[in-house]
Amino acid sequence: MKKIAVLGSTGSIGTQTLDVISREPDSYEVVGLAAGNNVDLLLEQVRAFRPKLVSVGTKEAAEALKLQVPSGVKVVHGEEGLIEVAAGSGATYVVCALIGSIGLRSTLAAIDAGADIGLANKETLVTAGHIVMQRAKEMGVALLPVDSEHSAIFQCLNGENTKAIKRLVLTASGGSFRNRTREELRGVTVEDALKHPNWRMGAKITIDSATMVNKGLEVMEAHWLFGLPYDRIDVVLHPESIIHSMVEFVDTSVMAQLGNPDMRVPIQYALTYPERKPSPATPLDLLAAGSLNFRPMDFERFPCLRMAYEAGRAGGTATTVFNAANEIAVARFLKGEIAFLAIEDIISEVLSRHDAIATPDLETILEADRWARLEAFSR
Amino acid sequence: MKKIAVLGSTGSIGTQTLDVISREPDSYEVVGLAAGNNVDLLLEQVRAFRPKLVSVGTKEAAEALKLQVPSGVKVVHGEEGLIEVAAGSGATYVVCALIGSIGLRSTLAAIDAGADIGLANKETLVTAGHIVMQRAKEMGVALLPVDSEHSAIFQCLNGENTKAIKRLVLTASGGSFRNRTREELRGVTVEDALKHPNWRMGAKITIDSATMVNKGLEVMEAHWLFGLPYDRIDVVLHPESIIHSMVEFVDTSVMAQLGNPDMRVPIQYALTYPERKPSPATPLDLLAAGSLNFRPMDFERFPCLRMAYEAGRAGGTATTVFNAANEIAVARFLKGEIAFLAIEDIISEVLSRHDAIATPDLETILEADRWARLEAFSR
Repeated sequence: MKKIAVLGSTGSIGTQTLDVISREPDSYEVVGLAAGNNVDLLLEQVRAFRPKLVSVGTKEAAEALKLQVPSGVKVVHGEEGLIEVAAGSGATYVVCALIGSIGLRSTLAAIDAGADIGLANKETLVTAGHIVMQRAKEMGVALLPVDSEHSAIFQCLNGENTKAIKRLVLTASGGSFRNRTREELRGVTVEDALKHPNWRMGAKITIDSATMVNKGLEVMEAHWLFGLPYDRIDVVLHPESIIHSMVEFVDTSVMAQLGNPDMRVPIQYALTYPERKPSPATPLDLLAAGSLNFRPMDFERFPCLRMAYEAGRAGGTATTVFNAANEIAVARFLKGEIAFLAIEDIISEVLSRHDAIATPDLETILEADRWARLEAFSR
Repeated sequence: MKKIAVLGSTGSIGTQTLDVISREPDSYEVVGLAAGNNVDLLLEQVRAFRPKLVSVGTKEAAEALKLQVPSGVKVVHGEEGLIEVAAGSGATYVVCALIGSIGLRSTLAAIDAGADIGLANKETLVTAGHIVMQRAKEMGVALLPVDSEHSAIFQCLNGENTKAIKRLVLTASGGSFRNRTREELRGVTVEDALKHPNWRMGAKITIDSATMVNKGLEVMEAHWLFGLPYDRIDVVLHPESIIHSMVEFVDTSVMAQLGNPDMRVPIQYALTYPERKPSPATPLDLLAAGSLNFRPMDFERFPCLRMAYEAGRAGGTATTVFNAANEIAVARFLKGEIAFLAIEDIISEVLSRHDAIATPDLETILEADRWARLEAFSR
């Protein structure tokens, strides 16, 4: 039985993780849950899964929750609480499903505690890939990708020698505005941007899909997870989101993983690997789909992806700055403060003002992160 | 260094196998070659690869060849010669690329000699799958598929637990007449039938693609190779022949292998497995392809595939009879004796006159084979 902690349990990936776990109650014991401020949902989860340790965002939320949880459940809060759930809950497997760079410290804490990691927080690798990969290697823990694209690549590499990889091909749906020109993006609303054509996801990642920042973060994540240089990681537009990603090998064979867009499949695979278990997802019907289409990525149309490659190649703190500037810009767009196209302007301006520091330590990364956020606020 | 014998070295698969081998001369030693009556090409191959043992179809061809081969090369002939190359050449790996049921005895001889098998002769499994799989298991030899579809499935199963398979999906291009109605098939010529849209292959298999008999034989082969019942092996029309086949797993994930149609890729994989080596094949350009299309298989349009499933489910000698009747019918069509649509009529009539014998021994199989051929000649 796997002892599981879920960081970010009330978010989109967190709730779907608990859905997967609830279908195989004999395989998993939930020992810890951490969430932000959605106390009501967290309380439901505590009652359903009976973890011994729970963390919420603030002291106030923790006080409110303490009055309602069953006896024997310890309630903690804040970043310290998060780290306690990651590293002090007795979990042998931690699902890191926090959004943004807040996931970094807790993921490192879980690795240091020797837990295997189901990694849905892509900023962890984006901002500190060199530290996280090194730490995981030293501790001998597995980093299992939860993102559908990285899960697809991970599945394509099953049983293969990674030296035989020629390149990775990440597929991109194109997001909510894929059929609009840049001119047509000027007046778009938050509501428009949140309508992803294929995937049911949280707000931040849905905006990131529309700007193609999400694909940029995925390219960086793939760079670290699979140890390949950026010029061997390509992105292709695939509107149907049925091929989740591909690996081309030196013999010209291409392996692909396909399925309906349902995050419960990669989440479950990260939990059951190397086994596969039946899933509640709807099986793929290729005959109903009829055809799978592919178009070249347009870096003029999606400049954020171009900037992501540039930041990735610059390396060091550049990817942290790319990510932090984007987080603030998206938050400001969601609040109605800035226009959709200002997201890319802000990323571009903040990146242009940053001199990347190579192989930064954690403090340098966090400093670059803080700096970029302040810069992005003031644009 | 692998010691290799190639049975059927002058055919389409045989020549491409030697092409692959010639690109990695340090990895392979060709110790035996067997061909039919193409003495000129065989002689070229003997000069290039210097096997110690060579077999040709007839005594006359052997006499002619003996006068021209370098000294030290032993020349044998006929089915005994074929078996000597399969089992007496010192090969540790035998590529079985003969066409038709003649491949059965020599493949069994190679298995009994403890050689791993690169299997391109699908009739071996079609007619005697239960015997061949059992013998390979007893001898602990690997049966590595060379057919592009089975190689694709084999690659999709790399690193997987076969118990997690839900179903196999073989793709079918539809062959040379895929855009014609049954009515439009009445007057077709041999020349028309030999124009396969995607693959460069021998005449017999090109006709079998047009009738969909080839896909039927592949379904039977997949049944034996991967140990799945017929109701978990599906066929889907995929005109581009880019996805070579797929495996759907219980978690709804579908793994697929893609590539340009070039038999050197699966041939090479069967030789280098579990490694992959660079290939001269042209890398797949999905952007140039633009889209991959899928249509349901039409069993009314392709009754030979329906009959193949029926023969497969009947089991025993039924598949031998299906295959033997088809071999004769195709030979007669290629000679201009019968019309294209008569191929399916002959298979249907011969099958309807046969009472399948369950788990037949080799003699019973060969007897059923002979009977079906005679029947198919006289229709």
